[in-house]
Amino acid sequence: MGEAHFADRLLEAVERKRSHVVVGFDPDFALLPPEIVARHPEEAYINHEVRKAAAYRDFLSQLAEALVEEAVAVKIQIAYFEALGSTGYSLYEEVVHLCRELGYLVIADVKRGDIGSTAEAYATAHLDEVGADAVTVNPYFGTDGLEPFLRRARQEGKGLFLLVKTSNPGSAELQDLMLASGEPFYMRVAALVNRWGEETQGRHGYRAVGAVVGGTHPQQGEVLRAAMPGVPFLVPGYGAQGATAEAVAKMLDARGSGAVVNSARAILYAYRGQPQSNWLDAAVAEAKAMKEALWKAAGRA
Amino acid sequence: MGEAHFADRLLEAVERKRSHVVVGFDPDFALLPPEIVARHPEEAYINHEVRKAAAYRDFLSQLAEALVEEAVAVKIQIAYFEALGSTGYSLYEEVVHLCRELGYLVIADVKRGDIGSTAEAYATAHLDEVGADAVTVNPYFGTDGLEPFLRRARQEGKGLFLLVKTSNPGSAELQDLMLASGEPFYMRVAALVNRWGEETQGRHGYRAVGAVVGGTHPQQGEVLRAAMPGVPFLVPGYGAQGATAEAVAKMLDARGSGAVVNSARAILYAYRGQPQSNWLDAAVAEAKAMKEALWKAAGRA
Repeated sequence: MGEAHFADRLLEAVERKRSHVVVGFDPDFALLPPEIVARHPEEAYINHEVRKAAAYRDFLSQLAEALVEEAVAVKIQIAYFEALGSTGYSLYEEVVHLCRELGYLVIADVKRGDIGSTAEAYATAHLDEVGADAVTVNPYFGTDGLEPFLRRARQEGKGLFLLVKTSNPGSAELQDLMLASGEPFYMRVAALVNRWGEETQGRHGYRAVGAVVGGTHPQQGEVLRAAMPGVPFLVPGYGAQGATAEAVAKMLDARGSGAVVNSARAILYAYRGQPQSNWLDAAVAEAKAMKEALWKAAGRA
Repeated sequence: MGEAHFADRLLEAVERKRSHVVVGFDPDFALLPPEIVARHPEEAYINHEVRKAAAYRDFLSQLAEALVEEAVAVKIQIAYFEALGSTGYSLYEEVVHLCRELGYLVIADVKRGDIGSTAEAYATAHLDEVGADAVTVNPYFGTDGLEPFLRRARQEGKGLFLLVKTSNPGSAELQDLMLASGEPFYMRVAALVNRWGEETQGRHGYRAVGAVVGGTHPQQGEVLRAAMPGVPFLVPGYGAQGATAEAVAKMLDARGSGAVVNSARAILYAYRGQPQSNWLDAAVAEAKAMKEALWKAAGRA
């Protein structure tokens, strides 16, 4: 047992910080505040990847320090780091460490999924070596592909979030298909998530095996909440993708807990809507507003 | 237009080398030949990751040079590289470049899948920056999550292989679910793959948007072959996972083409079953035997 139970740590952080907010680290060079870009002139770096990585490091470390009171967890979208090659991968490792040192729970948003032997290598990579607290996982391969992640959830205090219903429009094409049994495909995934999490119950009634349920689908979210009691939800889609506090409140339990909500672009690039503010102040204000809106919608204010 | 059409390049390589073989680079330190390990003593390296990466580089570069006549493509399983952190990611980039220089088509087996903006970052990472010829992609997110990959298949000579029916036992849990329409889930994925590839037809009747169909499911493979004419198949599961040449021949078209077959562990670690041989000779002999068995099963010998 490395650390305490993942869902216990997550739900305790929600109570302590009075926040359901997860800040999504999706760094995009084209959207960085001009002040950040100006601090990293092209001529100071040997190539574009190193320059972009330096700007991302600067940007994300300032955000991480400033958002400690507002966000319980950081969700790091690895794709934006991979886009900078090994330089970016190295920064991904560094940002995970920094955020853990600051006391955040770190969710590595890697959405990996493969056969068992390969899944073992992915679990080693992101949960053991990089040391994230949790990872997002694609359920497409079924149980044997999940076992390496599940073992770490049962024994090592790690967490998983399985993709059940994603936030994007195209999610309906496969995830909503009606099965011969009379239920949509995502409900079968939910049933598997219930089974996969069976031996991972924590002290607060929640399991270490969670679900990703897009905040852009509130009706389905409400049904899924009822179908998966004790399964923590990671809800993407707030802010830039259009989900509201009232919509995501349907994914909370009766106590106003059991789910955390991610916002990335709306927080990171809040300065674009508030040109009179300092970029970091704008980000903090956005996260604080989100935190308060969610706390109120949860009936906790 | 960067390069010629992906499926044209793949099928022409099959004819030129008289081979359907894809060698899977799944490096596993515990299985490396003792001669390789002995060349990389612990005390010569600053840490385990650097040592393992050096041993993998040595092992894979010897294999890549020795297998040029036998294999048309190399499938690089990125999970084993990620398990060594940024050191491993850097080696992944290096191995892609080396294999392309040797004339292989390089399939980055990354199985990524996410919402559109994130998928764009993944496509940038693996097709543009690392420069693989093709990637494996998880279809779970639907069309908008695939568009960044599809655009590169339509316009830049890149290839995709969508996961339709994976080789592992657990694949039945979700992929085989019966739909209300009377067909199994994987047939709906196949229909989407047909649609996604519509504007990617090459000169030899095959598209740049392919499918992963496990060689361990020959009946389903035969049905899928008929359902997806013009879709190149990447067939995993040969060798260590148990698929035979006769089984995978069912995924070829009437001309004995249209599919390539991956084997990783059975080739890479062939020396374990042939203790009297040099490890590299054993690997080459295994690949050659696979090439000949497939060519014969394809009715081409």
